[in-house]
Order: sequence, then structure tokens, then C-alpha cells
Amino acid sequence: MNNIPSSLDVRLKARNGNNFTTSGLANSFVQTNVVIIPKKFAYDFMLYCQRNPKPCPLIEVFDPGEFSSSNAKNSDIRTDIPEYKIFKNGKFLNFSENIISLWREDFVTFLLGCSFTFENELIKNGIDLPYFKSGKNVPMFITSIDTINAGKFSGKMVVTQRWIPREKVVRTIQITSRFPNQHGTPIQVGNSEEIGILNPHKPDFGDSWIPDDKNLVPVYWACGVTPQIAIQNAKLEIVITHSPGKMFITDLKDEDMAVI
Amino acid sequence: MNNIPSSLDVRLKARNGNNFTTSGLANSFVQTNVVIIPKKFAYDFMLYCQRNPKPCPLIEVFDPGEFSSSNAKNSDIRTDIPEYKIFKNGKFLNFSENIISLWREDFVTFLLGCSFTFENELIKNGIDLPYFKSGKNVPMFITSIDTINAGKFSGKMVVTQRWIPREKVVRTIQITSRFPNQHGTPIQVGNSEEIGILNPHKPDFGDSWIPDDKNLVPVYWACGVTPQIAIQNAKLEIVITHSPGKMFITDLKDEDMAVI
Repeated sequence: MNNIPSSLDVRLKARNGNNFTTSGLANSFVQTNVVIIPKKFAYDFMLYCQRNPKPCPLIEVFDPGEFSSSNAKNSDIRTDIPEYKIFKNGKFLNFSENIISLWREDFVTFLLGCSFTFENELIKNGIDLPYFKSGKNVPMFITSIDTINAGKFSGKMVVTQRWIPREKVVRTIQITSRFPNQHGTPIQVGNSEEIGILNPHKPDFGDSWIPDDKNLVPVYWACGVTPQIAIQNAKLEIVITHSPGKMFITDLKDEDMAVI
Repeated sequence: MNNIPSSLDVRLKARNGNNFTTSGLANSFVQTNVVIIPKKFAYDFMLYCQRNPKPCPLIEVFDPGEFSSSNAKNSDIRTDIPEYKIFKNGKFLNFSENIISLWREDFVTFLLGCSFTFENELIKNGIDLPYFKSGKNVPMFITSIDTINAGKFSGKMVVTQRWIPREKVVRTIQITSRFPNQHGTPIQVGNSEEIGILNPHKPDFGDSWIPDDKNLVPVYWACGVTPQIAIQNAKLEIVITHSPGKMFITDLKDEDMAVI
């Protein structure tokens, strides 16, 4: 018996109205960040992603009005994410279980790579990720690092945080180098303050984790929640995203994303 | 004395009206393919690049009307390429030494990665590239492989060809894996016919090379000339590109492009 759910299993679980974090679920399938915006803003947003590939690595851009991913069979982007965030005029309005009633023919969906892809590789290398098995969410922080703007889109970079044993830091860098479309190498190792994180135990999104071992070093990766900040700054009439840590699961396999 | 020209030296040489191939020149600087199109077609073209990252890896997209690259100090995209190709309504019209008189405020310039980036690494590994030192142009072929379309853009993939000693093929794959934004790994090793190349000594662009050694294997990489085919199929009112093998030289260093 194989108890690991397939990508479709997880999509169907979300479609049936369940709300859950996806870290560690369907653990050989590529998970993605999601941004859905009207077509008229899509050029500037795609340009923003092109100029900021570490936080915003593009995996797929749908045609306008399309709601099924060409990388996820029988998928429906309107229902298959465990929780959606709705933004209007740059302000977060509410969470939603699905977006069927909001759907428009001019909506363009962007799927962006997610660091969950390299987590299995970290686990295989003996690097413990406590939130991974507990159903908790990875800690995420808004840094002091400016992204490169494109049109109306600009803002600070968001990062994920993982505490890595000192002797595994080099291996961690090697592992994540293989996945440039899933945020790739860390943007900071060890010095939280250097990227404007004054309290590394108080994340802006996700769950805090206080390490009980002096040997652990905080390591930070660019995060696909970054565009949620840029979207708020751009004050678009409407934007829909996934809720942090509650991702869209494709049929792509993590290992297929490795460049080497 | 260092006789290797800087990136600016090569741009100035082109600006002064000289016509030359850039393979092997300024050999630690990143060279790029160039596509210049009106803003109204830029969304579909950027999407075409996103969907076809092997032939069309995006290095930079300029703001409309901008003619200086943020990756090349004091550059002018209207003069700094040795030779331009002008297409009108999908047909190749003429070559040009510069495009000053054609420039429009709604022109968007795209820089795409080029396989010349990994050529120095191949040379360092004892892989001889005869056209590299001779001032000749790398052989390029239109294959039978369909790219993924976006809006009006569609067409066959163009590839570059290099003849590699049999015992160096594995090393060649390793070296080029490090540069996913410069076409990365080969798309075909050894079997030209499998990608629709019936005569591997008769390229569609560039110069033919007939190897004199039975030990050499033809290896093919996706090529940044691919969008020139897609552009012709799209029949845009006007498009300007570099001439194959006569590239734009940035101030970026080849080694900075390596992901690992």
C-alpha cells in the first residue's frame, strides 16, 4: 500500500472544501504559488517575474480565461487550492474556499515555483524540517531587500526560513542549487538582521519555530509570497492568490525540475 | 598586455559600423540574441519565451522606448549590434548597420541567452570549436521540433550544432547543464535525422563545417534564432533582430550565469 497521496488526490481534497497546508503532502509533485490577475495587468506582472526570478520563477502562464493547468490533468484553478486570498484595490479582503463566483474570462493565472520542491531532497540528506511533518507552515518574513520594479509592481522580498545544522549548510546550498526555478540557492545564510529580520522567531506569515539547538543556523530563500506584497503596492482592482503555505499541486515531478 | 577586447570595446566596434561575427570575441562576457518588437505584441512574445525557455531564455526585457541595457553600461541597442535584420509583415526585408532611423517609442527590446556563454567552458575542457577562432559562424538548423505557441507566435525550433569528440560528450552535457539560461543541456546527441536534419553539413544559417574525424559526434542545442522563425509566422508589421551569430555583448560575465 502506498499512502502518499497523488497530486490529483490533493487537488480533489481541496476541491471538496478542505482547508490544509500542503507542505510535505504529495511529496514528489511540484507545488506552486498562484497569482490570478486581469489580463490588462498581466504584461507588467510577467515582466516583474522576469526581473525577479529568485522570488518569482515562472512555471506556467495560462491563456486568458483558462482555468485548467496544462501541467495538472483535470485540474481547476478555481477550486483546487485549499485556501484563496482575495485582494481588492491593493487591500486584502478575505479568504475563500473557492473562486467560482469571482471567475472572469479576462483572468490570467500565473504558477510560480515553490521551495517545497527541494524539501524532500533536504529530508533525504538528513536535514530535519519540523513543520514539514507536523502540518504547520514554514516561517515566512518580509525582508528589507527591494525587488526590481516593473510597471506598478514593486516591493520588498519575502523569504522562507529553515534552520539547518551548521555542518549541513554546504550540502543544503548544493541541493537547492539544482532547482533554480524553485527559488534555487539561499539568499542569506546565518545573519537574519542583514536582510532586515530583527526577530527570527516572529514570522510575518506561517508558523514560528524556536530551535532548541545552538548548532542550527537560520537559512533564507526567496519566497513566492513576494508578489503578494507587490500586488498590494500596485493596488489592482482585483487579485486572487493562494494562501501562504496552501499551494496548488501540479502533476510535474520535483526531480524533473532539477537542472543537473 | 591583455588583447581580449572588453564588452564595451566590441559594442563600440559595432557602433562604428563594422560588421563581424561575435563568436569567440569578448570571451568572458555574456552575449545575447536580440528581438525588438512593438509593445502591443510584447505580451505574447514574452509568453512565447516563457513557454519555450530552452530556445528563448529571457535575460532582460527593456521598458518601452528604452534603448540602453541595464546590463551593459553606456550601451545603445540601436547601434551596438554588428548587423541587424529587419522584418516587415513577416518577411525579411533587409540587413542594416544600425536602426536609428527606424526607432520608435513603443519598441520593446528582449535580450535572450546565447550558447556562446558556455563555449569558453567547452574550450577549457579541450573541446575544439573550429569556427570559434576562425571568425566563421556556428552552424544553425531549422528542426522538425514544434515550439509551444503563444498568441500569434509559433514555429519550429532552431538549433546550433557542435561536433564533439565521443569521449567528451558526457563532459559536454555536464558543462552546459550549468547554464540553463544559455540554452542549457543539448536537445539531441548524435542523431541529426531524429530532429529533422537530413544533411548535417548544410545549415540553414551560419557556416557549414565538415568534420575530418570519424570520432566526432554532432550535438545540438536549442538556439536563440528560434524566435526569428516565430516572428515570421506571426507576420508582425515590424520586427528587428540581430543577424545570426552577430550578437549583442553585455557587461554580465559568463561565469555569473552558472547555476552551480
